[in-house]
Amino acid sequence: MFEQLGLIGCGLMGGSFAMAMKRAGLVKRVVGYSKSPSTTERARQMGVIDVEAPSALLAVSGADIVLLAVPVAATEATFKAIRHLVTANMLVMDVGSTKRDVVEAAHRVLRDHVASFVPAHPIAGKEVSGVEHADPDLYQGKQVILTPTERTLPAHVRRAQELWEGLGCHVHQMAPESHDAAFAAVSHLPHLIAFALMHGILHQYNGKEFLGLGGPGFKDFTRIAASDPKMWRDILLANRVELVEQAKMFQRSLMTMMKLAEDGEGEKLEELITEASNARAHWRMGQKLK
Amino acid sequence: MFEQLGLIGCGLMGGSFAMAMKRAGLVKRVVGYSKSPSTTERARQMGVIDVEAPSALLAVSGADIVLLAVPVAATEATFKAIRHLVTANMLVMDVGSTKRDVVEAAHRVLRDHVASFVPAHPIAGKEVSGVEHADPDLYQGKQVILTPTERTLPAHVRRAQELWEGLGCHVHQMAPESHDAAFAAVSHLPHLIAFALMHGILHQYNGKEFLGLGGPGFKDFTRIAASDPKMWRDILLANRVELVEQAKMFQRSLMTMMKLAEDGEGEKLEELITEASNARAHWRMGQKLK
Repeated sequence: MFEQLGLIGCGLMGGSFAMAMKRAGLVKRVVGYSKSPSTTERARQMGVIDVEAPSALLAVSGADIVLLAVPVAATEATFKAIRHLVTANMLVMDVGSTKRDVVEAAHRVLRDHVASFVPAHPIAGKEVSGVEHADPDLYQGKQVILTPTERTLPAHVRRAQELWEGLGCHVHQMAPESHDAAFAAVSHLPHLIAFALMHGILHQYNGKEFLGLGGPGFKDFTRIAASDPKMWRDILLANRVELVEQAKMFQRSLMTMMKLAEDGEGEKLEELITEASNARAHWRMGQKLK
Repeated sequence: MFEQLGLIGCGLMGGSFAMAMKRAGLVKRVVGYSKSPSTTERARQMGVIDVEAPSALLAVSGADIVLLAVPVAATEATFKAIRHLVTANMLVMDVGSTKRDVVEAAHRVLRDHVASFVPAHPIAGKEVSGVEHADPDLYQGKQVILTPTERTLPAHVRRAQELWEGLGCHVHQMAPESHDAAFAAVSHLPHLIAFALMHGILHQYNGKEFLGLGGPGFKDFTRIAASDPKMWRDILLANRVELVEQAKMFQRSLMTMMKLAEDGEGEKLEELITEASNARAHWRMGQKLK
């Protein structure tokens, strides 16, 4: 149970966290700050936060738990803004989709107080953003990855784990590097592909007509292409090393299958499709594939 | 209104068509044939068809409307099996996802009776197959593309159009080549990509662990990867020329965006993502993009 949450970034992720913490009775008071004053004001009017802070630093003042829910590219600047008030007893977390860059920024900026920082990535989101879409159920039943380093205080990791479990999440620990490779594969690359597919169609003659013919498969496949451009620009840039690795592996698979289709190698093509189809048919969110 | 539907292929697509036609009062009697006798029997037990035919030819005998609902690769053989009983008054349609190969097969095999054939592609489906998933609502509200050639009898095209409209569909006409290019872009390539993505992840060290971390975005993006392997092998092979064209355009877009991420060109990357994101955000199934 926490006394005061300092929430930096009152958008979809941060707002949903504050609402879920309040509902679960895990925090008494939420002090919020957003870069845009109108967002902070709206969050307070909606009851998502109790008090508006005029700066990130003042949002941290007096808090025993701090959540950074800002675009990953803004993480380092946010650490700089708050570092003078981070204490050893304070649990500091983020919700960023990349972890290696965040951990490096924490080490650079927080120095000794990096012990208070438990890097976190809740696997939840919507293709819409903003506090008006905040939802206390956003994290319910979802996975949360914690990527503590050897300098993170184990007691803070335990508190972080209990907190997310208290919000109905399944918590796993991974090294930041493994996290980034995994999410390059299952999230960042699929987003990049969805953007590139839309782009490739839009720029051909009759492309808009073609798009009008997309059915239910196209709808689901491209849903993530509608995601927030600034947020995804930042994620793709932050995780570019792993992303490029994954993209290369994907392209090899794509080239292999395309070549089989071109050469009329039906049997071998069917074999590869069957493998993919079986794996996907047995896939369940939040469960390790057998 | 038709007297007797000769249904060749009593699976998901064919079974759903028979159920929808019956419910709409558009046909009195359905005579069905499937390659596997157990499928035909199950279709009759479920009331999807009224009479089991022992061969494709006998399913056509006495019919005033015939629907081929077989894998695209089986189309030519099916035309050969039925051609002796195809008449000038009979409306013959298929439901295949590719049209150029089907039209060519029809010309080769049906000769003069090709006038009776109205190539059709209802944009509907499920990632599961089989008569047990047949659903009279499958076609409701969906688009149907007709690709008549200069040899198709206009009266048959009109009857086909009215029939699909009677099932609640929106009907468009296109040339077979335009159809195949469009569906390579919005359906066949997305399937190939989804198969290749699953494949690329499965074959890396820790791949199964990675898959366990996929969230809601991954779930929707890869849903089509669970599709039927034989059916998709046939579609990818049948439409390989257009598929390869589309795959090349997609790969150019992907390479461009990857390069921008690698080079840290955030502004330009955001521009391309924004274009894709806006297009997808304004996309509505069945509507031409403005």
